[in-house]
Amino acid sequence: MPQPPPAQPGQREEEIDTPALLIDLDAFEANLDRMAARVAATGARLRPHAKTHKSPVIAGLQMARGAVGQCVQKVAEAEVLAWGGIPDILVSNEVVGAAKLSRLAALAPIAEVALCVDHPAQVASIEAAARDAARRLTVLVEIDVGGGRCGVAPGEAAVELAAAIAASPHLRFGGLQAYNGRAQHLRTPGERQHAIAATVDDTRRTVALLRHKGLECAIVGGGGTGTFELEAASGVFNELQAGSYVFMDADYDRNLGEDGLPVARFHQSLFVLATILSQPCPGRAVVDAGLKAVATDSGLPLPWRHPEWRYTGASDEHGKIEFAAEAPAPKLGEKLRLVPGHCDPTVARHDWYVGVRGGRVECLWPVAARGAQA
Amino acid sequence: MPQPPPAQPGQREEEIDTPALLIDLDAFEANLDRMAARVAATGARLRPHAKTHKSPVIAGLQMARGAVGQCVQKVAEAEVLAWGGIPDILVSNEVVGAAKLSRLAALAPIAEVALCVDHPAQVASIEAAARDAARRLTVLVEIDVGGGRCGVAPGEAAVELAAAIAASPHLRFGGLQAYNGRAQHLRTPGERQHAIAATVDDTRRTVALLRHKGLECAIVGGGGTGTFELEAASGVFNELQAGSYVFMDADYDRNLGEDGLPVARFHQSLFVLATILSQPCPGRAVVDAGLKAVATDSGLPLPWRHPEWRYTGASDEHGKIEFAAEAPAPKLGEKLRLVPGHCDPTVARHDWYVGVRGGRVECLWPVAARGAQA
Repeated sequence: MPQPPPAQPGQREEEIDTPALLIDLDAFEANLDRMAARVAATGARLRPHAKTHKSPVIAGLQMARGAVGQCVQKVAEAEVLAWGGIPDILVSNEVVGAAKLSRLAALAPIAEVALCVDHPAQVASIEAAARDAARRLTVLVEIDVGGGRCGVAPGEAAVELAAAIAASPHLRFGGLQAYNGRAQHLRTPGERQHAIAATVDDTRRTVALLRHKGLECAIVGGGGTGTFELEAASGVFNELQAGSYVFMDADYDRNLGEDGLPVARFHQSLFVLATILSQPCPGRAVVDAGLKAVATDSGLPLPWRHPEWRYTGASDEHGKIEFAAEAPAPKLGEKLRLVPGHCDPTVARHDWYVGVRGGRVECLWPVAARGAQA
Repeated sequence: MPQPPPAQPGQREEEIDTPALLIDLDAFEANLDRMAARVAATGARLRPHAKTHKSPVIAGLQMARGAVGQCVQKVAEAEVLAWGGIPDILVSNEVVGAAKLSRLAALAPIAEVALCVDHPAQVASIEAAARDAARRLTVLVEIDVGGGRCGVAPGEAAVELAAAIAASPHLRFGGLQAYNGRAQHLRTPGERQHAIAATVDDTRRTVALLRHKGLECAIVGGGGTGTFELEAASGVFNELQAGSYVFMDADYDRNLGEDGLPVARFHQSLFVLATILSQPCPGRAVVDAGLKAVATDSGLPLPWRHPEWRYTGASDEHGKIEFAAEAPAPKLGEKLRLVPGHCDPTVARHDWYVGVRGGRVECLWPVAARGAQA
């Protein structure tokens, strides 16, 4: 049963029903502009990851600023974006199962669609789905460049897989998917540089081996919000896949720059607005946003601009706020913004974005691909 | 954008698209029957917590077995249940804000509705909402019996609040809400007995003080899946609010009984069905169910009936499965059931329940109150 939006345009922020997923539009637009400018300066292309925002509206704002397309992780996300008018979509992930592959092939008339493989059996399945749909699909080889999740080993294994793609009549070899997820949240610049140097070496070597076999990589994609400038500077990567930069989160804000301070290149633009629903005793209050409203996998949320209040525990529908007896106490009914620990799974808990500017609700956007897990 | 169901009735379990939220109907029905019988034997009433299942269908199955009503945590959950035909609903939580209170009052023509308070200001707000709606609402006093979250202190503070309710022309004093959430997952029977003994003492004392002032408690409610038999045996509690028993989860299965073995009174009936989408190297595979499909706040999910496989890490859309080199490896495309660490927030990530029996899909039920956070 779809839930009604928690606000109406024109309302004041204090009038928004809670819990609600807020976008601070000024901060958000500054992030979009900043990333577009930074990537343009490198000569690489930007293909932001829509697994963060799950929204054709936000994808469209990225495309209007020069992004060449979108990444997604799931076929159902690709559907929502394609149906929402996004013309170029890379599933930066493996897709297994004939039903999912036929759904993806069915998008080909309205969008450029590509996906990844890390096993020869996947190549055969995708070829069958493309043949049945009488379409040609673009397939990238995912290599494990330090993420330790999916992907074949860089080097010969990748070349074998690319050759199998190129030999399939309904497939086109599209290049390499080389994302190092583990490197994104390394805290110091030196750690991130060290990790991505190895990622770049592995990728460069694989690109050269492929070229030696006559297999050119139209896309060499990777990079996230934590490291995209390192991939861009390598001269090897030509597509950057950052996603979280549009919103940021408490965990990314723990990444430090050269000066030992947080890398504050992007602004916090995503919040969960919550209400104090109980103030049962001195030093404790309770908000109406718990595990079902905000992700806690990368740390608990932080009360925004209230460093004297600490969110110390989440249960299903409650968050506990604790504070020193001498600190100003939150008031019953007071609304406060929480900075999520991790933006992507927080967004996936909500049906609506509420865009605010200057203390007023400016827009409502559906989290259109919420629940698009298939 | 609502997602289509991942299955059709009659399909084999292996044909279900993933990730999917599965109910093993035999185990689930056995849980419903077992709880109904156990509570009936105590003389207390069962008012199960719908924050677990978020489904009027499942609520109806509980009511058909003798439950007197349902608990919820949110007004939006109360709406979904009332609209789905459930006639008696207790919001076992504080509700703050005029808009939410008027929505709750608007349900009074179709359902008995009650809610909780832990502050005099809430009593005044509820009285105003009930007066505006020309309805009479039932209000319980929540006392903190060890949960350390919401609730006034047991004793005099509760009596003052109850007197304020009773003095409000559009309110009816309904009793006490006395849930000790912290006690539910204490691992040994002795720890749970110790915690609930204090809960019972606090509650008994408060009930006696109220009675002394002429304030009778129609409802003395509390208890969860971990402790409900202790509250039932107290002679003080007359309503039990367990919810998780319908599904169970890996965390509840770590509660031990007198014999030091898991308290296996209820069966695991809830699963997330996942597919192996990558098998990149010996000892590692990756499933398509990560943070957006399964809750990890109370521990990572467990592969069902595959103790040789370990789910060792969740990212947004991926789960890493690791296993010894000599163990049988999962196959690419293979489907496996995961036992969630925590049932309630896992359910809240899905739009559909897929009911299976004997290896076949028997029914599809919407998670109707998914996203009902207001």
